[in-house]
Parts: sequence; C-alpha cells; structure tokens
Amino acid sequence: MSQYPDTAVAAGPGDPRALRALTAVALDALADGAAARGGALPAGGPEAVTARTRNLLTPILPAQGVGAHDALYDTVRATAQGAADPGEAHCVAHLHCPPLAVAAAADLAASALNPSMDSWDQAPAAAVVEEEVTAALATLMYPAEKRPDALITSGGTESNLVALLLARERARAATDGRGTLHVLCGENAHHSVHRAAWILGLPAPRHIPCPGGRMDPAALDTALRDLADTTGRADRALVVATAGTTDEGLIDPLPAIALTAQRHGAELHVDAAYGGPLLFSDELAEALRGIEHAVSVTFDLHKMGWQPVAAGVLAVPDAELLHALSLRADYLNADDDTEAGLPDLLGRSLRTSRRPDALKIAVTLRALGREGLGRVVEHCVRTARRLGDAVDAHPALRRRPGPVGISTVLFRPVAADRLPAEEGDELVAGIRRQLLTEGLAVLGRATAEDHDGTRRLWLKATLLHPQTVAADLDALLKLVAERAELSPTADVVTLPAPQARLESSAL
Amino acid sequence: MSQYPDTAVAAGPGDPRALRALTAVALDALADGAAARGGALPAGGPEAVTARTRNLLTPILPAQGVGAHDALYDTVRATAQGAADPGEAHCVAHLHCPPLAVAAAADLAASALNPSMDSWDQAPAAAVVEEEVTAALATLMYPAEKRPDALITSGGTESNLVALLLARERARAATDGRGTLHVLCGENAHHSVHRAAWILGLPAPRHIPCPGGRMDPAALDTALRDLADTTGRADRALVVATAGTTDEGLIDPLPAIALTAQRHGAELHVDAAYGGPLLFSDELAEALRGIEHAVSVTFDLHKMGWQPVAAGVLAVPDAELLHALSLRADYLNADDDTEAGLPDLLGRSLRTSRRPDALKIAVTLRALGREGLGRVVEHCVRTARRLGDAVDAHPALRRRPGPVGISTVLFRPVAADRLPAEEGDELVAGIRRQLLTEGLAVLGRATAEDHDGTRRLWLKATLLHPQTVAADLDALLKLVAERAELSPTADVVTLPAPQARLESSAL
Repeated sequence: MSQYPDTAVAAGPGDPRALRALTAVALDALADGAAARGGALPAGGPEAVTARTRNLLTPILPAQGVGAHDALYDTVRATAQGAADPGEAHCVAHLHCPPLAVAAAADLAASALNPSMDSWDQAPAAAVVEEEVTAALATLMYPAEKRPDALITSGGTESNLVALLLARERARAATDGRGTLHVLCGENAHHSVHRAAWILGLPAPRHIPCPGGRMDPAALDTALRDLADTTGRADRALVVATAGTTDEGLIDPLPAIALTAQRHGAELHVDAAYGGPLLFSDELAEALRGIEHAVSVTFDLHKMGWQPVAAGVLAVPDAELLHALSLRADYLNADDDTEAGLPDLLGRSLRTSRRPDALKIAVTLRALGREGLGRVVEHCVRTARRLGDAVDAHPALRRRPGPVGISTVLFRPVAADRLPAEEGDELVAGIRRQLLTEGLAVLGRATAEDHDGTRRLWLKATLLHPQTVAADLDALLKLVAERAELSPTADVVTLPAPQARLESSAL
Repeated sequence: MSQYPDTAVAAGPGDPRALRALTAVALDALADGAAARGGALPAGGPEAVTARTRNLLTPILPAQGVGAHDALYDTVRATAQGAADPGEAHCVAHLHCPPLAVAAAADLAASALNPSMDSWDQAPAAAVVEEEVTAALATLMYPAEKRPDALITSGGTESNLVALLLARERARAATDGRGTLHVLCGENAHHSVHRAAWILGLPAPRHIPCPGGRMDPAALDTALRDLADTTGRADRALVVATAGTTDEGLIDPLPAIALTAQRHGAELHVDAAYGGPLLFSDELAEALRGIEHAVSVTFDLHKMGWQPVAAGVLAVPDAELLHALSLRADYLNADDDTEAGLPDLLGRSLRTSRRPDALKIAVTLRALGREGLGRVVEHCVRTARRLGDAVDAHPALRRRPGPVGISTVLFRPVAADRLPAEEGDELVAGIRRQLLTEGLAVLGRATAEDHDGTRRLWLKATLLHPQTVAADLDALLKLVAERAELSPTADVVTLPAPQARLESSAL
C-alpha cells in the first residue's frame, strides 16, 4: 500500500482491490441516501435542502482529510438524499433519463481506466470502441455507402455548437472568407442554437414561426427569400430544424423543410437530441423521414438512450465534413508518428482530454441490440400516450390539444382555466413548485399554444423510464388535481411542506 | 423486474441491486483485462490492437442484444486489455493521471444518480456540492473577500475557451462593440488557446518568444507596444500565460508578466491546467506567485488532481465576471421560479445537460484535505527530480539542460547526439514508437531547446502516479538505453514486436 493514505489508484496491474472496496461503500451510500430521501426528490425546498447538504459536507476542503471511506460515504449519501432521482417514477420534468445499470457500470470502467480520447497512446482500445460506436450511430440516419461518421460530444448543446461551427467554416471556405453564415431556426428551437451563434460570433439566428409547435415550411420559404434579398450575395444560410422539441416533443416537418432549404441553396441541420433514438424502432423511425437530407444531425443518448450524462453525438453523412476540426499538436499527433501508423484522434472533438463516453454507449448497444433499444423507445412513447389518455379521462385535468409529442405530455388543471389568464398560469407554476417543495414529484413546465392560439403555461411530464407504466402516474395526476382543488389561486406557492414528510426524511 | 431484459435502472427507490451485480462484473473484467495486457499498454502496435479489439466487439450494434452481462464483461475486458493504463508505472507520456480509487468510486454515484447541473430540480444537492467545490478551489488562488468563484469545465481546453469568450465580451462591452480582442500568448502555450480564438472568431493569437521554454516579459512588452501601434484604439488585449507547460512543465514568470500586462492596460489569463495544484502545497505554492493578478485561471484536476476526466475548472476573482454567461430558458429557470427561490444554475456553463463532475472532486478534497493533496503533489515533483538525477547519472542518457519542470523530465539517448540532427530526432521518435509497439512503456515526446539553442526532440516522462518512485523507473531508463544501443538509426521504427510478448498477451 501507499505511503500516502487514501491515494490508492483505481486501475493499474493486479486486481482493483481498493476500487472494489470503495465501490461497495458508494453503493451503500446510494441505498441509504435514497431511503432517507423516500421519494422523487428531497422535501423542504431549496433552502432546506441546501442547508442540510451544506451542513453535511462543510468544509469541503479541510486542512486535514477525513479519509477515503468517510468522505465517500458522507458525500455520496448526502447527494443521493438530496437528489431529484430520475429512477423514481414521479421524476418526469426534463429530458433527464434514469441511466441503465449496465451503462453506469460500464462508466465505472471508464473512470477507472481513464483513457483520454485525444491520442492513440492514451486510448488504444477505447479509440476502436469509439470508432465502432460512431460508425454504427451515423449509419442509423445516413446511407452506409456515403461514409457517414459521427463525433461524441458532451450533449446536444455541444453538438449544435460544432454543427454551426462546421457550417461557418464551409461558408467561409466557399466564399473565400467574404460570406457570413446566417442561421434560421424555429421559435421552438433549443436555446443552444442561439448560444452557439453567440459563441461563434455569428449574427443572431432568425426565428421561423411555429404554429402548433412545429416549424412552418411556408414561413421558412419566406424567411429564406427575405434573407437573400437583404444580405450579401456571398452569404450562406443554415436552417436548423428540430426533431423532438424540448417543450413538447414535436417533430418539425423534415421532408418539406429539407426541400425548402434545398430550393434556396441553404443547408439543413437537424437537432434530434430528443427524437433521434426513434431510429432504433422500425415502427417509429418513419417519424424522422427526411433526416437523411441534413448536413449534420444532433443525436443524444443521455435522453432517450438511458445513458448517464454525457452521451452526445453529432452525425454527418460523410467523414470529410469533419475535416475543419483537424488539428496538429506535436505532443499528441506528430506527423512522423501519424505516418508511422499511430492513429490521429485529435480532430474528433473541440475538447482535448476527453472521457471515453463511447464505452458505456457501446456496452448498451451490444447489450440491448437495435431491437431491444427500439422496444424501450416504444415503451416510453406508449406510456406517454396512455398518460395522455388518462389526462383526457380525468375530470379535473386537460391535455394540451393535439397529439402527444414523442414521450412528452402537457396538461393543466381545469381550475386554471377558470381564472384570468395570468392567474391561471400562476396556479400551474405554483402547483409545480409546491410538489417540488413537498418532495412528491418533479414535473416540468412549458408554454405552448392552446386550441384558441393563446400561449398558456402547462405542466409537462417527459416519460423516459424503461419500467414506468401509465398506472404508476395515476397518483401523480391525483396529486396535481388535489393541489389545484385545495388552492384555486397562486397562493399555493407559499404553502409550507407538510410537517410529517419533512420529519420522516430529516436526518 | 422489468418486462424488458437488461433495462434495470441504476438508481431509484430501494437498494441498487442491479448496479451492485453489474459493477462486480465490470470490476472482474477490469482485473482480467489488465492481467491479459500485462504491462503499460497492449503489445503489437495500432494495427494488431485495433484488429483484436474490433474482433472482440463487432458488431457493436447487433439486431438482437447479447445481454447486459456479456456485453459489459466483453467490452470492459477488451478496453482494459487494450488500455494505456496510467495506473502502470511505465505509462508516463502525458498529463494523463491514474485516477484515485476514491474518485472513481464517487464517479460511479454520479453515473447512477445522473443529476444534471442545468437546473435545481435535476440536481438539488449536487448543486450545493458544486457550489462548495468551486468556492474552495477559487479561494486557493484568489483572496476570499473579493467573492472568488469558479466554473466546472470539461478540461483546460474548455476553460481556456470560456476565458477568451469572457474577455471578448468584456472587450465588446467596454467599447460598445467597436473593439476587437487580441490574444497574446507564449510560443509555449497550449494549442487550445489558438483553437479558442478560432472558435470565437477572434484574430489568431500573437506569439511571444519563449527562450528556454518560458515567456519573455521584455518580448511581451514589445509585442503589446506593437499591438497598440497597429490596431484600433478601441481594441483590447488579453495576455495568456502558462503555469506548467505541456511539453516541459515550466512556469512563465507570472509577476513580471502581470506587471507588463497591467502597464499596457491588458488583461491576464493564466493557464494553470497543469501547475494549479501546486497551490495545495505550502512548500510549492510560491512557484505560482502572481497568479492572483489574473482575471481568470484555468485549473484542472484530471491532471495533477488524480481525477477521472473530466475535472476542469475556470476560476475568477469575482463572481460578477461570469455574468456574461447568464441565460434564460423558461423550461430550466423561468423568472417566476427564480423569484420563488429555485436556484438558477444555467449560467454556470456553456453546456446545458452536465454531469456532476464536482462530486468526485468533492469526495477527493474531503478525503485527502489540502495537506494530503499537497503531499501527493510534492511526491510527484520529488519523483521527477529524482528521475532527473538518475538520467544525469546514466552514461547512455542525458537530460534537457535546465531545471526539471514541475513533474516533467525531458531526456534523450546520447547515441542520438552522435547522429546528424534530423536522424538523431528520428532515433528518439523511433525509440518511443518501438516501446509503444512492444507494449513496454508509454513515453511522451517534446521538442525543446538544447544548451546550444537548437530545438531537438526529447523523450518525455510526466510523473503523476501517487505511488511510483524513481526506482520504479530505472527499468524504463534501461529500456531506452538498450533500444538506443541496439538500433543506432531510425530503423528501430520498423522492428517487429517480440513474438513472446505478443503470444503471452493474445487472447
């Protein structure tokens, strides 16, 4: 053992004894923390949770350490006790999935071996794993004969950033640096499209109207015509469509958008961070028809792919399209090393040191296969539809008109409709916050068009749990209806959490 | 259990039984893979390793899955067998550390609970952990009374990107958008500084000469004067200094650089991705004097902090300096939620979904304390100095003249000096590749000035293992000397790997 206590390393030669012992501690702490929490999230609201957690962990950097066992147990237990755990049936606010046990276990090996994906001599086998994973995923959406490829990213946000960066560089190259790239995206697009344009020094994206939550191809046509009229002849346009909006799970009409973009000589990027995994299912893949026309696709397996964050992907139809990311750094990929056969990994990311997120994805793909993954996707979609039906059947609730988007259900208490518009929305927001404070449910929120075209606030349930069935959510609907009943005004915001629940989960 | 085989989730209510069972499988696969590898990296070179790994894992996405157990065991075993494992004493090429077992075990909890750091209702307690960690780390380099703060990033590359982005926005704000930001960095700066300027649409950074590997303050003074003469009056300058260069572990003269920058009204960013952890040691912190003048500091705990990737940090002296990253997205931080007390986490990253990398850092800080971490840093520095002494004492090797930088030793066989310059460098590069192919050692490479001012290629050993002592590396020096002796020309590149070793590690 080491001369320094607690500094045993995770891997190396021999059996990983220290890691075995400490993983057992972490697992016990997870179990104990979940039991202490006793629900989807800790009760008490932000102030109470913050105070309790801080109290358990201060000082985080003492002069003398408390030792590996205690630091690990205490910190993991406090984090689990204070988690909004997507493994709980009532934790459905966000595109925040419960990771599969098999993916989390594979991720432990990534942490222990710590291959870094920026050079072959840090990741000889992990580089092969990534190559196989990216090729397989890119082939889900692009024809194999065109040499499709993909990058592993930290998520949809980085994928969109790289997509816009690559488009910016193509625009520069095509116009000898004289042209600017203009981005056009739906009002329904993820905020990361705007953020990417800001980071890259591009003009702010133009918004295309999205009646009913989906991009209107006729409005896109008009916008592209306006753009051509008002900008330089050397300028280029990139249309960003969404396949699975964050708020509603809706898919833009990809074939019509692709055609419109093509007619104007614009490129198309599809943000399928949410909807991409529909491609695993023969039954559901049809919903993404047209995606193959995109010059790049954002895809994300830490949403409907049951991976721990991060598991982002950016796919392109031809590996050549990634060339702008090439980079030479002698310590990582010197010319003579590359010529002598050492693979060059550096141009596959904006990052340098990089965790092998492909490992957990590889294990999951092989464990479940395309059909197995497709069945879980279908399960989530079916659960959402059934939850939608349950809302429709509930006398005190109503669903946002229109179809359920992928696995997202928007609904609100009818009590909110009896109030003036603003107060109705306040009731909806208040119920969400009350259930959070009570530690009973993590519901999301979204503003979306009602049948009369008015934008209203809705509660949002995003179904991503492989085992949750609609019946598990009956209790959730009941909670919402009760809270609306009890508190017909925005006063609900200030209701204290029930004392009994607080006591049972206090340390 | 689930109706879908292999889809048990990692956390949720109750004991994480599936995760317990599968972590045991992953740990066995790690042990078996390391035993099959039998050294610092797999023997055979890229082609053989790629073929073997691919053979074990194809197809990565079968139509029907092979099940969780087999997919996990096979993939992790193949990745471990084909790893360049920094837990092995002879794996010393890069700033690629062996993670502590306690950090890897904590990271398992991050994977299982999967809190996402972009909203409070996905990470109630993890947000507190991050807050405590970032405050503690920022206070290592900035006075507590100024309200220092830090962001968790994916590594030094992202930290440098955000640092330049924040500087760009300050330049814009100060000049009503009329001024451009000009970046000046040493020739010794990490490539990510250039990449960041490219991504952000800034002019390419200007290079300051670095005689002996460190930035020359007089040359910086001249460059800043030239810049003022040749650019617009509204333009602004950011100087990027390095505290721990990738090639040599050298620290730029921070006090003189800070003074020079200040005299010209330029801001200073310090990239201390490597050297930052010297601040844990009372004995070594002095080497970073002057860092407190920086407007931002890149700091990284997946190098000399023994964390699995990613564990990047960007520290600032005042939380106000991060304001440009603020962002509003109704589904994550609606105004009324923020007003009602839900903490807003969204402006703390360029990413949206974000793994709680602060958790493993928190556990490590608490486990070892500042003194414990300082002792391990001192151990690595001392080991490098002793290795330097061993090179000095070796008749067939010589060290790059000058002091050992942090924990990095540059050396080459004297046989290389007897050859014409280019052939000498080829011998050095060839020895490195031969040891990689033989599976015996992962040494790095760096071009650096010799005593006569000529830039030559050196072998590089970066000492980051908490348990490795200089005597463990005697065998490594012997290997290098033998290879140089056996193969006095660049022919070594093509030597086949010894058959015996290949057979013993084949499946």
